[in-house]
Amino acid sequence: MAQKWVYAFEEGDATMRNLLGGKGCNLAEMTRIGLPVPPGFTVTTEACIAYMNTGKFPEGMWEEVLAHVDALNKKTGKEFANDANPLLVSIRSGARESMPGMMDTILNVGLTPGAVETMGKKFNDMRFAWDLYRRLIQMYSKVVLDVPGEEFEEIIDEERARIGAESDAQMTAEGWRRCADRFMKLAEKHTGKPFPQDPYKQLELGIEAVFKSWNGKRAVDYRNHYGYPHTWGTAANIVTMVYGNIADGVSGTGVAFTRNPATGEKKFYGEYLLNAQGEDVVSGARTPTEVSGLAKEIPQAWDDLMEVARILEEHYRETQDIEFTIESGKLWMLQTRSGKRTAASAVKIAVDMVDEGLITPAEAVARISPDMIDQMLHPRFDEEVLKKTTPLAKGLNASPGAAVGKVYFDADTAEAKSKEGEPVILVRPLTEPSDVHGMLAAKGILTAEGGATSHAAVVARQLGKPCVAGCADIKINLEKKFFSVNQTVVKEGDYISLNGAKGTVYVGQLPVVAPKLEEQTELLKILGWADEIRRLMVWANADDEQQAARARSYGAQGIGLCRTEHMFLGERTQLFQNYILAADPDTKQKALDKLAELQHDDFYGIFRAMDGLPVIIRLIDPPLHEFLPARDELKVDVALGHERGEDVSEKEFLLHKAEELAEFNPMLGLRGIRLGIMMPDVTLMQVHAIISAACDAAKDGYDVHPEIMIPLTAHINELKLLQTVLEDEARKVMAAKGVAVDYKFGTMIEIPRAAITAREIAGLAQFFSFGTNDLTQMTYGISRDDAERHFLLQYVEKGILPKNPFQTIDRDGVGALMKMAVADGRATRPDLEVGICGEHGGDPDSIDFCHLIGLNYVSCSPFRVPVARLAAAHAALREKGWERLGELGVRDPHRK
Amino acid sequence: MAQKWVYAFEEGDATMRNLLGGKGCNLAEMTRIGLPVPPGFTVTTEACIAYMNTGKFPEGMWEEVLAHVDALNKKTGKEFANDANPLLVSIRSGARESMPGMMDTILNVGLTPGAVETMGKKFNDMRFAWDLYRRLIQMYSKVVLDVPGEEFEEIIDEERARIGAESDAQMTAEGWRRCADRFMKLAEKHTGKPFPQDPYKQLELGIEAVFKSWNGKRAVDYRNHYGYPHTWGTAANIVTMVYGNIADGVSGTGVAFTRNPATGEKKFYGEYLLNAQGEDVVSGARTPTEVSGLAKEIPQAWDDLMEVARILEEHYRETQDIEFTIESGKLWMLQTRSGKRTAASAVKIAVDMVDEGLITPAEAVARISPDMIDQMLHPRFDEEVLKKTTPLAKGLNASPGAAVGKVYFDADTAEAKSKEGEPVILVRPLTEPSDVHGMLAAKGILTAEGGATSHAAVVARQLGKPCVAGCADIKINLEKKFFSVNQTVVKEGDYISLNGAKGTVYVGQLPVVAPKLEEQTELLKILGWADEIRRLMVWANADDEQQAARARSYGAQGIGLCRTEHMFLGERTQLFQNYILAADPDTKQKALDKLAELQHDDFYGIFRAMDGLPVIIRLIDPPLHEFLPARDELKVDVALGHERGEDVSEKEFLLHKAEELAEFNPMLGLRGIRLGIMMPDVTLMQVHAIISAACDAAKDGYDVHPEIMIPLTAHINELKLLQTVLEDEARKVMAAKGVAVDYKFGTMIEIPRAAITAREIAGLAQFFSFGTNDLTQMTYGISRDDAERHFLLQYVEKGILPKNPFQTIDRDGVGALMKMAVADGRATRPDLEVGICGEHGGDPDSIDFCHLIGLNYVSCSPFRVPVARLAAAHAALREKGWERLGELGVRDPHRK
Repeated sequence: MAQKWVYAFEEGDATMRNLLGGKGCNLAEMTRIGLPVPPGFTVTTEACIAYMNTGKFPEGMWEEVLAHVDALNKKTGKEFANDANPLLVSIRSGARESMPGMMDTILNVGLTPGAVETMGKKFNDMRFAWDLYRRLIQMYSKVVLDVPGEEFEEIIDEERARIGAESDAQMTAEGWRRCADRFMKLAEKHTGKPFPQDPYKQLELGIEAVFKSWNGKRAVDYRNHYGYPHTWGTAANIVTMVYGNIADGVSGTGVAFTRNPATGEKKFYGEYLLNAQGEDVVSGARTPTEVSGLAKEIPQAWDDLMEVARILEEHYRETQDIEFTIESGKLWMLQTRSGKRTAASAVKIAVDMVDEGLITPAEAVARISPDMIDQMLHPRFDEEVLKKTTPLAKGLNASPGAAVGKVYFDADTAEAKSKEGEPVILVRPLTEPSDVHGMLAAKGILTAEGGATSHAAVVARQLGKPCVAGCADIKINLEKKFFSVNQTVVKEGDYISLNGAKGTVYVGQLPVVAPKLEEQTELLKILGWADEIRRLMVWANADDEQQAARARSYGAQGIGLCRTEHMFLGERTQLFQNYILAADPDTKQKALDKLAELQHDDFYGIFRAMDGLPVIIRLIDPPLHEFLPARDELKVDVALGHERGEDVSEKEFLLHKAEELAEFNPMLGLRGIRLGIMMPDVTLMQVHAIISAACDAAKDGYDVHPEIMIPLTAHINELKLLQTVLEDEARKVMAAKGVAVDYKFGTMIEIPRAAITAREIAGLAQFFSFGTNDLTQMTYGISRDDAERHFLLQYVEKGILPKNPFQTIDRDGVGALMKMAVADGRATRPDLEVGICGEHGGDPDSIDFCHLIGLNYVSCSPFRVPVARLAAAHAALREKGWERLGELGVRDPHRK
Repeated sequence: MAQKWVYAFEEGDATMRNLLGGKGCNLAEMTRIGLPVPPGFTVTTEACIAYMNTGKFPEGMWEEVLAHVDALNKKTGKEFANDANPLLVSIRSGARESMPGMMDTILNVGLTPGAVETMGKKFNDMRFAWDLYRRLIQMYSKVVLDVPGEEFEEIIDEERARIGAESDAQMTAEGWRRCADRFMKLAEKHTGKPFPQDPYKQLELGIEAVFKSWNGKRAVDYRNHYGYPHTWGTAANIVTMVYGNIADGVSGTGVAFTRNPATGEKKFYGEYLLNAQGEDVVSGARTPTEVSGLAKEIPQAWDDLMEVARILEEHYRETQDIEFTIESGKLWMLQTRSGKRTAASAVKIAVDMVDEGLITPAEAVARISPDMIDQMLHPRFDEEVLKKTTPLAKGLNASPGAAVGKVYFDADTAEAKSKEGEPVILVRPLTEPSDVHGMLAAKGILTAEGGATSHAAVVARQLGKPCVAGCADIKINLEKKFFSVNQTVVKEGDYISLNGAKGTVYVGQLPVVAPKLEEQTELLKILGWADEIRRLMVWANADDEQQAARARSYGAQGIGLCRTEHMFLGERTQLFQNYILAADPDTKQKALDKLAELQHDDFYGIFRAMDGLPVIIRLIDPPLHEFLPARDELKVDVALGHERGEDVSEKEFLLHKAEELAEFNPMLGLRGIRLGIMMPDVTLMQVHAIISAACDAAKDGYDVHPEIMIPLTAHINELKLLQTVLEDEARKVMAAKGVAVDYKFGTMIEIPRAAITAREIAGLAQFFSFGTNDLTQMTYGISRDDAERHFLLQYVEKGILPKNPFQTIDRDGVGALMKMAVADGRATRPDLEVGICGEHGGDPDSIDFCHLIGLNYVSCSPFRVPVARLAAAHAALREKGWERLGELGVRDPHRK
């Protein structure tokens, strides 16, 4: 059977998202459940892909389109390409995932001068008819014929001036007719051909243009940013035109959310314009009215809209973002989709919907992305300071959050400055899709125009960036690069602060504070449900009591990595240098004894904070030369000292030591367990401090679970040797203290050989902890300190590597070793405790992998613990199959 | 059934080596085939192990010993512990492998004062009888009672002086009696107990002492050195005494080889002493007589001995090292074993025995160890001269061979002087890649630092040049150009001689002799047989035509690694620096064009030398900063220049570039394929040179098989990218030349991830070549440049690592990855060509592993090719089972 390229709305449903695109499948779904959708049909994404591959429509597609146009004629009682009873349509793009504003739409296709006359007569409104026509020519010329948009705006301005119209609303029929006329000439001038008056030609070229827009620069950039495949393609939706721009007082158009997308409040939220087509609302050219105004203006349509909203939420069990048009009092639905929203509103909506019985807790958890938690816990302005500070200006609270940065007025400069490390605020009259790279680079966005659903607002919310939109107080001078509010002038490079939650703008830099998890009750509910779902434990990396306490308050179930060498920094560096540099054992031992005391207290504090929970303490890892001054600087100092005749004996001694300890490849050098074997006294000191602190804490009533971790094991014999030394010391300490504490002995798996020989190593080690940072360096043969500077980022940019393997675990390479090590280790020791303590432990995709290969826990930085709790729950849901969550046309939203 | 701990000689045979030890099993074997062996029995190695574990004889062992003593009484007609007709025995140690002199033997056990009288009367020789007795007390006291040996020698000296005897031979019966008396008192003084006169007590303690000697310091050290397990244990052989020290003119004792162990000549070879016990010959106290003298002295015994020798060689099909005693004209055999021999004699004997029909060619091949070939092919110093000369210093025997030359302290001067025709020895603290031109020019290399796998050692072995590394005795003064050892000063231009095989350094010129492979007809025969046996091909690493030709003459079947960056050294470094430093593309391209010309000629030469054979050429591998001056030196120069007010702009520019290229861990940095991707022009230049040279050589009638190898691949996408670039260039060159050459495209497998993802990589790569050097560094997390200095050698010494993984492939770790990569690669591409080009390619144990996992070839330095040919044959024989070779009690002699 030949492939089917076109589906009438009656033929599709919400599960056909991949084939019909998001817009198309939802128009079909709404049609299916009886909501008022103008008749139409969808040309599939597969047709688009075929077109992109061959440069022409696939065989049979155009014939199907023609058949569906015929069907439309029948359904509507009008006729396409018949000036006496014209059927007009829009052509709307729509890919699998929403890509707002990235692709093209053309309205009023099928209009010709003859049809204009008919329409004018039918609606008794020639101004409306000519307006439709000039809109067709304007959009079509821009989208299909590539005529620059500004030239149309100039013509409109001239024609408005001619008749003294202050706005488009004051334009006359004649004015729009003249515009249409001049537009056609303009198009002909640019293309060398007359504007196509054949409706079928318009339709054909229009569908082609929509297909082509899939590979337009904006769309490609957008997909690159979000990691969407370029092979999806877009569908083209052909929809019977309905008109919100008839001047009968009961026509209009609007966009709305079934709940507030900024706060999550359960209140219909949106805007509308009377006498307008959809683009008028979205473009921000006219300032729209709050949607509830419709209740008075067109009460029947308002009631219908409320009913539709109720049905949609119950049907989709999700808050919806809708577009509607009211034509002469009759409501038409032009789009519905899941409403984009802020992190806070997403959490509130999810929790509310569980309370309302619309969704299950698991569905609520599934709907929150790890990014959202990150956003909610991100710093915001200090409330006390806000109270005392007067805003410079106020606009719409388009996207919440606190942003502090320097003002830049165009996307390119914003991007460039951001790359130089400056915090940037992008300030624009309005944003457009071509500004997205500047928005990506910015800490926050401020626009003078546009509403809560303007491009700036929508994209900012999606990016999780603070945005104040439609801030009419500010007067922007793009040329001279400043903006002013009354007498205050803010120049390029000046600092401002944006409070996205309130829509306020401040001069200068306001102090920010981190929000407290314990105050975010809805988020705590989500995390609580996540905890019930997940199988992976979440532990944290913490090097002192304060960090440990914070981690615990964020839900950490243990400490997966306490780096003891961090305890040698600061004031203690000198002590450790004394140890390294001393020639006589006495001085060495004295330095160690003092360090042992200090470390004892460090450990005691951590055990206290983690009362009842496991604490993994890693013995010293870095090479000793890290604790000495840099060798090349010493060399220069010594050479200069000689030249100047100064006494450099001390420097020379340091240099000598530094040379002795220097390594060509320190990453692969004398560190970790190798240090422990070559210099057992440091290891002994550390074990002494750990066990004695544990004994003391146990005596004081704390429930201690120390786990001693050896870094950098490559061969079982290393572990064997060190374990003997270490257990002897532990026994001695416990005997001296008169307390026994139950401790574990284990190792990091961070050298490929350790992973390969896990079967043997698990014979001695009671636990494994993957150090995926080093494991990635060695498995991939990449020095992280060097590679990002020299080639790694370019590799990722060029697509040579799908992802930066230091951010997300390389499943095929490093992951294969991990998987092998877990299986082999547990073959020897079925109850082997296995976790991960590298940075990957806080990365959702890596957490998913850790879940899949059966780790016991991931350990991440304290601030990432809530993110990891959620990601671990997602991993469990994903493994079972998101489909089982029972959502309509459900996809895995958190995996790219 | 209870375990059997004791075997009469009649009960054993040569295959029971592990249970009875080497001596025991061969005494049994000789007994079995009817040769004259004094009756006796063997207490097993298992009894020894049981004794070591528990500190006492295992249950039932002593009873078995007693039963076998009774049997001996019957066989000999004498009676143990009966003074009237005493049976005396010796107790002799004997482990699985010969450990000459490492363990203990006690003679004349069972003797008492009463028995002495009987013996004296029986042989009519009281001097003989008392001599036996004093020997028993002396040996027994030393071995069993731990009395210091010197004190006995002092007593003998005193007693000799008393009667004016100049030697032991002049001692009287009374003298020996007095000695025996004083010896007993000495023993009693030391032990507080009278010397045991109960023969059974003597026997019991004697067996215990032999068992204990297994764990004596000497024996333990010996086993550590040779890598023998400490768990083998030794057997104890109880042998009826026969006497070579009866003063009847027809008694004596001797040791002999059935063929000459130094030359291999088929001539009975050995020494004897009349009127002596075995220890007298071995100890060297009396000067023995050449064995053929027996033919006149005791003709019948000589004839018997010749017959025994013939039988033994025919039976064992191997040259034998024997011990015999003649008691009153009757020949007794006390030991036989395979004769240790020099490399040259081993080869000659093996070939002769094939000619004689005694053994098969496969057995001959099996008998030659790889070390022997190495010894035979390296130039060496005259042994006679060495014996008489004291070394100046001693370091590591990093690369064998003899080198004589004048000392130079930097590579440039070394090269210059060599060009002037001087023989040069390069002396450096350490060598680096930038010294290679000096090493190439030198006859030998001496370094003060660095281990057996330091740069100097590795490159020297590769070049087949003698090298003494890590010679800490020498203090080098680079500035003043001399080195000193204590008071001796060696200045630039002075002659020294290096003995690489021993790691010794001599002042002046020692005479050398250089063997030539083509002149060693017997060795060529062995290698020819080896070639017929082996499955692995042997290729060589060669960087120029001369090396390639040499490799071919040594039997190489291809070039497995041609390192193109070696072609950037010497005079060409400046050209490549021009490329690196130039800012404008023109200058860069000019430098590359010139290099392309030079490389073309290099490749042409190699193709010519390898006419008909494959040549793998690796594209540039090392990081660029290796071609610039060292960064820290530049830093010092710039700082000093500033201080002095000099113009340092040029140095600053170099420093700037060096900083830009600097890496923390260059081993894991921007090199190999990463360079090829980030700077494709160098790659293009190289591919251009390779393909154009191949085309030109093909036009000139050579049969060329170039294989282009990409180093450091980690991800399939890297290869994909480079392959496209490279194949385009190759196509272009071939089109321009009008010739098509068949080339292969492949990659090194030297990053763990490449091995792990071999299945994918083999989809693109037509061949794999394991770079086990880097693969070991990354899999093991060990930087070779650093580790030997800091911990690796100590690790091997302490037994933490069984072997240095850079010398012998770590089968459990690195080897596991290799095995996986071979299997996975061939799953994708069944005809995938897989080889190894790291240094391991010349290591016999690693070659064995390469054979087992199914590699196609090993590639090693030209000088190692004969060794590898033999080792590859051994691998094939080992896989089939050495036992099938049909040798008696055969063991795998070449594997530890």
